[in-house]
Amino acid sequence: MIMKVSVYVFLLFLFSLNLRAENGHDLWLRNKSTSHVNVVCSKSSPTLSIAVQELQQGWQGKDGVKVILTVKNDKAIRNNGFRLSPAGIQANTDLGILYGVYELLRRQQTGEIIEENVCNPSYEFRILDHWDNPNGTIERGYAGQSIFWRSGDTALSVTQNDRTLWKEYARADASIGINGAVLNNVNASPMMLSKKYLQRVKAIAEVLGPYGIRTYLSINFSSPAVIGGLKTSDPLDPEVIKWWKGKAREIYSLIPDFGGFLVKASSEGQPGPQDFGRTHADGANMLADALNPFGGIVMWRAFVYSPTDLDRAKQAYNEFMPLDGQFRDNVIIQVKNGPVDFQPREPFSPLFGAMKKTSVMPEFQVTQEYLGQAIHLVFLATMWEECLQSETYQKGAGSTVARCTDGSVYPQKHTAIAGVSNIGLDTNWCGHPFAQANWYAFGRLAWNNSLTSEKIADEWIKLTFAPVVPGQATSTLFSTEWTEHFLIPVRRMMLQSREAAVNYMMPLGIHHIFAGNHHYGPGPWYAPRGLRPDWTPPYYHKADTLGMGFERTRAGSDAVSQYHEPLGSQFNDLNTCPDKYLLWFHHLPWDYKMKSGRKLWDEICYHYETGLQQVREFQKIWDKVESYVDTDRFILIQSKLRSQCANAQVWKDACLLYFQQFSRMPIPYDIERPVNNLEDLIRNDTRRR
Amino acid sequence: MIMKVSVYVFLLFLFSLNLRAENGHDLWLRNKSTSHVNVVCSKSSPTLSIAVQELQQGWQGKDGVKVILTVKNDKAIRNNGFRLSPAGIQANTDLGILYGVYELLRRQQTGEIIEENVCNPSYEFRILDHWDNPNGTIERGYAGQSIFWRSGDTALSVTQNDRTLWKEYARADASIGINGAVLNNVNASPMMLSKKYLQRVKAIAEVLGPYGIRTYLSINFSSPAVIGGLKTSDPLDPEVIKWWKGKAREIYSLIPDFGGFLVKASSEGQPGPQDFGRTHADGANMLADALNPFGGIVMWRAFVYSPTDLDRAKQAYNEFMPLDGQFRDNVIIQVKNGPVDFQPREPFSPLFGAMKKTSVMPEFQVTQEYLGQAIHLVFLATMWEECLQSETYQKGAGSTVARCTDGSVYPQKHTAIAGVSNIGLDTNWCGHPFAQANWYAFGRLAWNNSLTSEKIADEWIKLTFAPVVPGQATSTLFSTEWTEHFLIPVRRMMLQSREAAVNYMMPLGIHHIFAGNHHYGPGPWYAPRGLRPDWTPPYYHKADTLGMGFERTRAGSDAVSQYHEPLGSQFNDLNTCPDKYLLWFHHLPWDYKMKSGRKLWDEICYHYETGLQQVREFQKIWDKVESYVDTDRFILIQSKLRSQCANAQVWKDACLLYFQQFSRMPIPYDIERPVNNLEDLIRNDTRRR
Repeated sequence: MIMKVSVYVFLLFLFSLNLRAENGHDLWLRNKSTSHVNVVCSKSSPTLSIAVQELQQGWQGKDGVKVILTVKNDKAIRNNGFRLSPAGIQANTDLGILYGVYELLRRQQTGEIIEENVCNPSYEFRILDHWDNPNGTIERGYAGQSIFWRSGDTALSVTQNDRTLWKEYARADASIGINGAVLNNVNASPMMLSKKYLQRVKAIAEVLGPYGIRTYLSINFSSPAVIGGLKTSDPLDPEVIKWWKGKAREIYSLIPDFGGFLVKASSEGQPGPQDFGRTHADGANMLADALNPFGGIVMWRAFVYSPTDLDRAKQAYNEFMPLDGQFRDNVIIQVKNGPVDFQPREPFSPLFGAMKKTSVMPEFQVTQEYLGQAIHLVFLATMWEECLQSETYQKGAGSTVARCTDGSVYPQKHTAIAGVSNIGLDTNWCGHPFAQANWYAFGRLAWNNSLTSEKIADEWIKLTFAPVVPGQATSTLFSTEWTEHFLIPVRRMMLQSREAAVNYMMPLGIHHIFAGNHHYGPGPWYAPRGLRPDWTPPYYHKADTLGMGFERTRAGSDAVSQYHEPLGSQFNDLNTCPDKYLLWFHHLPWDYKMKSGRKLWDEICYHYETGLQQVREFQKIWDKVESYVDTDRFILIQSKLRSQCANAQVWKDACLLYFQQFSRMPIPYDIERPVNNLEDLIRNDTRRR
Repeated sequence: MIMKVSVYVFLLFLFSLNLRAENGHDLWLRNKSTSHVNVVCSKSSPTLSIAVQELQQGWQGKDGVKVILTVKNDKAIRNNGFRLSPAGIQANTDLGILYGVYELLRRQQTGEIIEENVCNPSYEFRILDHWDNPNGTIERGYAGQSIFWRSGDTALSVTQNDRTLWKEYARADASIGINGAVLNNVNASPMMLSKKYLQRVKAIAEVLGPYGIRTYLSINFSSPAVIGGLKTSDPLDPEVIKWWKGKAREIYSLIPDFGGFLVKASSEGQPGPQDFGRTHADGANMLADALNPFGGIVMWRAFVYSPTDLDRAKQAYNEFMPLDGQFRDNVIIQVKNGPVDFQPREPFSPLFGAMKKTSVMPEFQVTQEYLGQAIHLVFLATMWEECLQSETYQKGAGSTVARCTDGSVYPQKHTAIAGVSNIGLDTNWCGHPFAQANWYAFGRLAWNNSLTSEKIADEWIKLTFAPVVPGQATSTLFSTEWTEHFLIPVRRMMLQSREAAVNYMMPLGIHHIFAGNHHYGPGPWYAPRGLRPDWTPPYYHKADTLGMGFERTRAGSDAVSQYHEPLGSQFNDLNTCPDKYLLWFHHLPWDYKMKSGRKLWDEICYHYETGLQQVREFQKIWDKVESYVDTDRFILIQSKLRSQCANAQVWKDACLLYFQQFSRMPIPYDIERPVNNLEDLIRNDTRRR
């Protein structure tokens, strides 16, 4: 009888494994080995053990081949880079070996040639920022609760399930080159630095460490007063300085490989040095000094703006440029890709390349706060590629944001890049299966900021949706049919998806016209009495009967002058300002004649319509690939695309009907008519349909 | 000072008149006279006074012309018909004169030739049924509360406002030939026959009378027991008979021109003769006998069905055919156009033409219970024309429903037609401006059942949307441009609108798949446990993995055999059954090959898609006529069309995604993908968006 039950349990187990196979939990790490590999590694360490195990479990090369893993100093190899060759992997560090293993396995699966070459990372620190709160909620998280924190009586007990999940998380990060994780929200609770929370950080760090993931914490600048019992948190106060030094010592005694602090200070109501009449440099340097003995870094966010300034887009530059040169070597200024806030499209932040004596790191948002959250299929690599490849014209032509931030133009003390994570407790980690591609893309770009979106999409699709046949190497299953009927159309969809979202949300440089608070649907009308103007869409679109757009030219807020010439003049001049930034920099009449020959109003209408039709096309693309995808993921994505299309209709209708009140011009007659009424849209919150 | 105030009041009055001009309240009666007419009428009566006044206030013919109104017997003229000629109007009755005046004025405004001809009504009784409840609500009403009844302390007091509104109502009815109004819901409250309610009926009748509108009441068959205090309401009980005779006498003493009773009995929980083991004939005849001395009629509804019968569509025929010949001369059996219940499309009821010894009247539903209520633009004249022009094959070929019910095939004692009203307290009477066209069309068809939908639409558009220029005759304002760019496209839209609704709601004979209770959105899945099966959509669509449709052939419920040959065989045979009734009569496999060459499933999909695209096209048509319509009505209709389009998407998505669970076949790839998810549609009631 007991035997019988065991057999059932075993069958049930097999069955559940099988089901789980395509629930998305395995991410881009779905393959199993198809042959035997003979791994030779003279050294041993937890990280190297993982490397060996990954090779053995994922090997899809020739049977019985010998692969040699060699940890040996080599000047051609930087940081955790590696030298890959058909015969094996060489690196300066154990972690470099692990990265080489993941690269080798990826190449095997995707069918890339494996030849001798050195792969070095673009950035020293490649960090995921988790905006996770101690109670388990996630700010701007759309895939369930935190994997690190939870509420309730067992909030701080570490279970085997926790460790399993953290390990899976660490493996996924490591497989794409991420080497750091900020475990908590930038709007940080002081509690995070308390003893009991640090115990849990320690437990997490122990799981993450072997995968080369260092843990970081967001800190609350008021911590000395709030949890330290001091009278002040003034960064120049000796007691405060002492408190932070002690706290750093305490943390490093628990977590020797602790990475450092991320700080959102004097921004959106968070405390900071300005509360005490000090500068960002005063605050950042004080913390940097506390961490320096232990090798920690401070990532200090440049995301600051005050309600009184006339142009929010200018403020980070205005506040931080005067401080260039005043920061300690272990301070990195973390700058969002654009000057406002993770919008569907922004020009790059003018701080990139402008701060020449300070380490500056780009901050990307992987979680789709402003891009349809876990409902819309929006592949963000194209957005990040656009930012990274933007010419800054700093130090002459040819200096892109990528080069200005990765040490190839300025000899920065540290290079780094951060992405705001999109993961949570959802079985598939990210809510939307295609949102996994954004996690993947962030890691890949952090490792190599010159990768193209197309290359990343290609890899990800192959790893994530390849046919699985036990015993057969993945790359042998990419038939011409599969490539033509699955890979190419799905890749095309991914590569068009961000432009589609820009089209149906905010084309032509329109920005921040989201519904209040949730930032999901449209809210160009949103302006509750008494709310800070820079928290309302009319502040940004400035639509009136004359026209719309934010005048940031020399005749306006002069934000254009924060860009290095000839860019400032190019943005300033209507003849040279790219259409995609037009209303970001210019307030233009509704009948302004566009380069297309159309009037501005018509051009706006056609962009919204194009966006909607692009999503309709994505639906068709997806429906056509049904036979190449497992049922669960097919149906989930199909369902989300339906909602995305309905949302695109809402976006289009809301924006056209709202702005039409000002333009007083008809929607061109060849465009699909709105199916939503403005008053209904204003009445009903358009969140998640 | 007082003078000043008066001037303001006067200006305000003018201003409000002006505003009111295009709020829809004036219906198709918007024109004012443009010249003087010399009306000669030797007789006088309230009705003739109205006729003279209408001529004077609406005259758009030559200035100073003499028009002679002559009441004189003429055998060519029947009932309230009239003889129209350029010189005047002749009729047998005062009311005939009034109808002639309205015809003359309509012809002037629409630009029709006025030549000598006799116009006789198709039906003797042309009745609007108001499903108004004593508390002021209206069953299946979508344009506000009742104009006849209200709740509260002043429920039964008659105000000047009441009289004004009733008069406007009576005038509108009379202008299109309606000559009767049932003032209350067929699901009747016994209270309606109480003294105090009859007082109000009397007040209404006094206003309606001069316009030739006789009042009728729906009665509750249990009234003798409920308000009479009798032990029974058995129609053969002497006390009951006596009670009804007394009640009839009481009514006629108050309202000498009272029309009679409308009865819904032994149906959907309403009491009736079957409660006492009596037949419909027993019940109807008893009431007929009570009314006969006063010239009243009984309209007895054939809308009956029991939950136990296997096919609801067959029941009215089964119950009433055996009673043919048993009804009194002043009983008319009121039969809905189709055998089920006012669906977007049904074949005609087989009772039409089959009951040869009984007066049978068609009942149409003007209020759009099943056709998008006051949101969707659906012109119903095409539906009624389709019914009226249906060949019954009774007494040989050439006998349509129209001819079988208007006395031209059978010498019926009485001919009549009823429409369930769509009006309420809304300023524009019907909620949707285009719903006025259905009120108009019902009246016009009741007068002349051979009118085409196109003619009716043409008239109505001209009367309702013609340009208004003071002093200029309406018909002189129909420029070629107006005709081409307004009249023709809007008429086309109206004429296509019912087929569009059939397409996006229930094409190919699908029927009654509405959401429960409200009958607005789709609910093919609606089947709460324990609910009568014939109140749930699966009873009607019978979708399963093999196919869908209700098998009413000889191999099924044999409803086909209720139709006269060759119709029964035609419906029975797949080769001859029209596509539009296909799934009404047949359960067919999903891959059944249609005459189009498509599979059934694909054909269903294309119909839903066509419906949606038709509404999209209506939106474009409407947007293009903006310059020809006043702003208020333009915007209101534009807004409703948006909702209609969103609703059409919901209908299409709900039905295709629901039925796809059974068909397991893909939605053809050239069709716009669904944008709603089935589970959301099931969760959210889709009422009014």
